[in-house]
Amino acid sequence: MTFTAQQIADFLKGEIIGNPNVEVDNFAKIEEGKPRTIAFLSNPKYTHYIYETKADIVLVNNDFIPEKTVSATLIKVPDAYAALASLLDLVNSLTPPKIGIEAMSFVSATAKLDDNIYVGAFAYIGENVQVGKNVKIYPQAYIGDNVKIGNNVVIYAGVKVYHSCIIGDNCILHAGVVVGADGFGFSKQEGVYHKIQQIGNVILEEDVEVGANTTIDRAVMGSTIIRRGVKLDNLIQVAHNCEIGKNTVMAAQVGIAGSTKIGEGCVLGGQVGIGGHITIGNQSQIGAQSGIISNTPEGSEVMGSPAYQIKNYFKSSIIIPKLPDMYRQINVLEKEIKELKKQLS
Amino acid sequence: MTFTAQQIADFLKGEIIGNPNVEVDNFAKIEEGKPRTIAFLSNPKYTHYIYETKADIVLVNNDFIPEKTVSATLIKVPDAYAALASLLDLVNSLTPPKIGIEAMSFVSATAKLDDNIYVGAFAYIGENVQVGKNVKIYPQAYIGDNVKIGNNVVIYAGVKVYHSCIIGDNCILHAGVVVGADGFGFSKQEGVYHKIQQIGNVILEEDVEVGANTTIDRAVMGSTIIRRGVKLDNLIQVAHNCEIGKNTVMAAQVGIAGSTKIGEGCVLGGQVGIGGHITIGNQSQIGAQSGIISNTPEGSEVMGSPAYQIKNYFKSSIIIPKLPDMYRQINVLEKEIKELKKQLS
Amino acid sequence: MTFTAQQIADFLKGEIIGNPNVEVDNFAKIEEGKPRTIAFLSNPKYTHYIYETKADIVLVNNDFIPEKTVSATLIKVPDAYAALASLLDLVNSLTPPKIGIEAMSFVSATAKLDDNIYVGAFAYIGENVQVGKNVKIYPQAYIGDNVKIGNNVVIYAGVKVYHSCIIGDNCILHAGVVVGADGFGFSKQEGVYHKIQQIGNVILEEDVEVGANTTIDRAVMGSTIIRRGVKLDNLIQVAHNCEIGKNTVMAAQVGIAGSTKIGEGCVLGGQVGIGGHITIGNQSQIGAQSGIISNTPEGSEVMGSPAYQIKNYFKSSIIIPKLPDMYRQINVLEKEIKELKKQLS
Repeated sequence: MTFTAQQIADFLKGEIIGNPNVEVDNFAKIEEGKPRTIAFLSNPKYTHYIYETKADIVLVNNDFIPEKTVSATLIKVPDAYAALASLLDLVNSLTPPKIGIEAMSFVSATAKLDDNIYVGAFAYIGENVQVGKNVKIYPQAYIGDNVKIGNNVVIYAGVKVYHSCIIGDNCILHAGVVVGADGFGFSKQEGVYHKIQQIGNVILEEDVEVGANTTIDRAVMGSTIIRRGVKLDNLIQVAHNCEIGKNTVMAAQVGIAGSTKIGEGCVLGGQVGIGGHITIGNQSQIGAQSGIISNTPEGSEVMGSPAYQIKNYFKSSIIIPKLPDMYRQINVLEKEIKELKKQLS
Repeated sequence: MTFTAQQIADFLKGEIIGNPNVEVDNFAKIEEGKPRTIAFLSNPKYTHYIYETKADIVLVNNDFIPEKTVSATLIKVPDAYAALASLLDLVNSLTPPKIGIEAMSFVSATAKLDDNIYVGAFAYIGENVQVGKNVKIYPQAYIGDNVKIGNNVVIYAGVKVYHSCIIGDNCILHAGVVVGADGFGFSKQEGVYHKIQQIGNVILEEDVEVGANTTIDRAVMGSTIIRRGVKLDNLIQVAHNCEIGKNTVMAAQVGIAGSTKIGEGCVLGGQVGIGGHITIGNQSQIGAQSGIISNTPEGSEVMGSPAYQIKNYFKSSIIIPKLPDMYRQINVLEKEIKELKKQLS
Repeated sequence: MTFTAQQIADFLKGEIIGNPNVEVDNFAKIEEGKPRTIAFLSNPKYTHYIYETKADIVLVNNDFIPEKTVSATLIKVPDAYAALASLLDLVNSLTPPKIGIEAMSFVSATAKLDDNIYVGAFAYIGENVQVGKNVKIYPQAYIGDNVKIGNNVVIYAGVKVYHSCIIGDNCILHAGVVVGADGFGFSKQEGVYHKIQQIGNVILEEDVEVGANTTIDRAVMGSTIIRRGVKLDNLIQVAHNCEIGKNTVMAAQVGIAGSTKIGEGCVLGGQVGIGGHITIGNQSQIGAQSGIISNTPEGSEVMGSPAYQIKNYFKSSIIIPKLPDMYRQINVLEKEIKELKKQLS
């Protein structure tokens, strides 16, 4: 697949600065650009690379004005990062999609599959499962009884969806994801834990993406709910009866305990832990590795374990390595004051 | 499945306050109660919901005395939470259990399966495997050579049990669990790591439940042992040669390094990390996100990274955001003392 | 498999102190030694066990001189731990290796498999896959289209390798590992996240071992690269476009955000988190649960979240539980100084 700068500029409706006939056949990051690649410049921190990159084409924002000679052909667009995303979409769409039901799969007689479906070998589709149009179910995926899957869903290899869960339109579940395993619920009697049956389910609304090996537990009663547009990275734990608000994103290895409600438009850094029965307000930002043990209001920006205001967090973090000095200093001051008191009395 | 308050009260041996003929066909949390649902009240924090819930029946403890009118029919029982658990058990038992060996499974000729077994399609049962009565092995599970599985065990879709491991009676392993992968053992020679073969195994005693995508490594020699009644949540790491004592529970994403021994009846919060070759005393409680780097005595209650007494932990946590102020304050005091000394001399 | 002390000493080229005819048929840790087992003593912390162990043979370093009577036969070798590793290798090599292609596997017509291969039942090998010599692909593993696998690779049950990734010679991937799932990349427009297609891949060089349920994401463009000799424990997250240097090891549950570069010969403790676009110098040591938010120079030894010098870390950690006392103390000093000033004026 070879494209000229002219073809790319036409596709993106961008403006060419340089040679419109230069050809590329691959992408590269600007700092790793090679001949016959196209790179992009969006983060100003990377601007200096544009003067040395070997990439033949660089996508830049309309307001970019070079301060030195640039050997690459530039294509100016309103948003270089979005333009790159469009090009990646284009390239991705050129891979012929998987289609058809491979022979060694298991599709229950009572399952209903809509048009234009892929079911890979060794995938298992249980009783009364409903699957929408244009769905791809990769090899070794497991779809338990009574699961409903919307349109345009992609379920990668080895995903496990327990019975009665619901997966909305356009969701993407990466390899190893487990949706609907039992929540962690026990009653303790004389030191021994007895299982509380978990008879609820999990609902993923539309446009949810779930990263590899992430786990979302079924509710004890009712539903664990992941709202529209939520994006979860890898190895995240969402416990039973949680609700994650629209367009909230979480980096890898976050853990959310049971019955916690996270608002809309929140951003959680990696390895954050949130206690049970907590409410996180809309548009909250929670720094990586934070521990949340109480409700946070809308628009909170917090960090630390336990978490507090992020601007104070970094100030305190600078002091912590100085604590041994502070400790000694206080004890010196204490002695000096004693001495002063003695002198005065 | 519709039940009247009378039927439920008879089953639970409870006392009805209200209409014995009201019917329900689903469960609900008290704060989300709808008509035709049954809810429960156990945590006093939720008491106010009982006056506004739309649930038609609420299970309450014998000592509950309403302070206002309650529209729901009440059923009084000694322990509302335990009564709910019994009802959930009842409902769960009404789902017809999986049974039989599905055609596209692989069962080695040398494997011995006892009565009343389910083996799902694409499950793999290796050589000389022994499986007890009433065991369910869901699709795509892998049971390596020489594994022994007790009675009444449930192994969900995609679980992997490496060779020679032992799974006791009544254990439940959720999807994506890996039992018996190699421990992380290497000898370093001239900067290069060489693998130490891990020839031990993993033993789960009776009544152990293991959450989705949790990993328990095989011992280098001997056994990694999970004692009777242990409950592990999702995405936990148990390293080689660990031993987890009876009736200990761990929340999600805990990590235990090699050769560590955890006592009986302990409770570990989410994302706790415990170093290698450490002993945790019986009945210890370890707060979420704690890091444990030394032995802890029986009955410890600790938190923090590194962990210390939990009651001190919360006191110190309140001070940490004030550190920048303390730092300034100390420096001001130091100057003032200098000034005082000058005046005095 | 029974061996005499003489046979073992001959194999290891060691010196026997005691009875050369004593027989063993199993390994044991020195503190758990039983008759007919062989143990080893390497860590001086365990020396006292040698006087009470029931093991019949103990491997010791050449410089070990007993201070009391030892009932076990000793075998002296230059490095007892390395000698043990050799014996474990020997025992491991006695298990007949898996070989052949099991009937219910799926091997694409366009895949090329070299000699001496094992492909387990329900394993899936996609189009144009290349597999080297002596490779073992266990049941239910998934090898996506266009993947290249070197020689002597072991891919355990249920591993998922997405399309176009490259696995070098001698790599070992444990059950549940996911290589090449999409990196976590979105562009945000009016509060909604749009997927950036991830068209790169993952490259594992030679001699890499990856622990159970670890995830390594594919690059947005170019490659996520794991260099020769890297050892990753279980449940680790490596994000898109990361590069992990030669012979670096990471304990379980570490998380590395996107585009971060880790040097050679580094050691990362469990549950460490490293931010995106960061560079970690060669030979760095990062303590468990640390959070890294800025570049670290070669040879760093850091701990904490955010991390600082490890020697200061432990000093500060001792002070943190004393913070409430310090806080009170400062306020007392402040009052006393006020009092002194009053007296002086």
